[in-house]
Amino acid sequence: MSNKPIIVLVRPQLGENIGKAARAMLNFGLTEMRIVAPRDGWPNPSAGPAAAGADTVLDEAKIYETTAEAVADCEHVYATTVRKRGVTKPVVGPDDAARLMHSQNGRHAVLFGREASGLATEDVALARHILTVPINPEFGSLNLAQAVILTAYEWSRIGRELEQSDLVQPTAEEDTLPPAPQDELEGLIAHLEGMLGPKGYFYPEARAEATRRTLRTVLTKPGWNHLEVRTLRGVLTSLGRPDKDVSD
Amino acid sequence: MSNKPIIVLVRPQLGENIGKAARAMLNFGLTEMRIVAPRDGWPNPSAGPAAAGADTVLDEAKIYETTAEAVADCEHVYATTVRKRGVTKPVVGPDDAARLMHSQNGRHAVLFGREASGLATEDVALARHILTVPINPEFGSLNLAQAVILTAYEWSRIGRELEQSDLVQPTAEEDTLPPAPQDELEGLIAHLEGMLGPKGYFYPEARAEATRRTLRTVLTKPGWNHLEVRTLRGVLTSLGRPDKDVSD
Repeated sequence: MSNKPIIVLVRPQLGENIGKAARAMLNFGLTEMRIVAPRDGWPNPSAGPAAAGADTVLDEAKIYETTAEAVADCEHVYATTVRKRGVTKPVVGPDDAARLMHSQNGRHAVLFGREASGLATEDVALARHILTVPINPEFGSLNLAQAVILTAYEWSRIGRELEQSDLVQPTAEEDTLPPAPQDELEGLIAHLEGMLGPKGYFYPEARAEATRRTLRTVLTKPGWNHLEVRTLRGVLTSLGRPDKDVSD
Repeated sequence: MSNKPIIVLVRPQLGENIGKAARAMLNFGLTEMRIVAPRDGWPNPSAGPAAAGADTVLDEAKIYETTAEAVADCEHVYATTVRKRGVTKPVVGPDDAARLMHSQNGRHAVLFGREASGLATEDVALARHILTVPINPEFGSLNLAQAVILTAYEWSRIGRELEQSDLVQPTAEEDTLPPAPQDELEGLIAHLEGMLGPKGYFYPEARAEATRRTLRTVLTKPGWNHLEVRTLRGVLTSLGRPDKDVSD
């Protein structure tokens, strides 16, 4: 099986939970963990015992200061949330997400928020999909390692299902390029915001943050590939120029 | 959804694990727990805190001395084991088991063994099916609550799948807006092209048509909805303005 998703723990609090997440991952063959700003630093002595043998996952985990840095090289980013928020992004279950991971080229990263509070709004804003485990509406109490294990389990299950279906999945996506890595998308967003600022687009100040988020959502949705992002950078550069002298 | 399976914990050791199993169950709507000869008696003071609110499951749990008594009234019994043993019973995964639960009348009970050693041979002998979670053959380390949550998750997932298979397929996108009508998209494209023309973007003339086509492809791909198209029209209008006087 290929295209293993990267599990990104954002600002986790307890080392024990990081260890349990590693164990949950390795049970279904996932090996790449990234950790954003772990509360108690890294390495964390409580993680190892809870990993119950999945030490290789912890040993190879990479640490980042921000979520944006952690997913900069990832083409597909999923934000796990317990409930849908007022975001206009497609919501998928762990099974749908697993199908996307197996059918779309590029690196897939799944963001998991801190134990107490989940993902911050700006973390969710980085993602193109919301991943929500459909749980009992009267008792939603999924912990970090449980959310990770369901994601890992579905990745493994759907992978086997696809392998067994004998089809070499000839999807329409086959010869299209994957979405550009996140840092290229960030470059595009920064370019446009840089041009809009002087035009007063983000005025009044009180609305600026919401306006930036809306813009980010609109530009994240397409999943533009490298060439498309390059085209749009060219469009912005052109728009920033003075009008051309026609006699030129 | 109907035909909830009964979760039977056979000779569990730690109260904490009983509580975690209850929490895992209730997350996916399962409520009936039976416990065979819990090592530390019952009730167990460590179970409640670990249940994280799923106390009703614990309060209503029934205690039995033997596994045979615990499943005496059940028509379908599954024995969870990590690996297939030398038994000649059909082996199912959590998804297959869930399909059986939803399609076959009668009470379904799933047996989970003690933490350290799993089910005894005589417990397995009671079951008609072996339930095995297909895990990483090089790292099989599924704990009790994880095995329970995967069983409960699949019961819930397959139930929804069956319910929805009759209805018109509600996609993951269901509560996002549909793409804007074509004329709104055309308006956006024309607006951008109108701004790019004077900048020399479509120069040289020989390349103009291909350039327009590329631009159209990039802007058509996202399937932006009405609100998103309106946002982008606003962006273009802003970009076309002179820079704002900051003192303004």
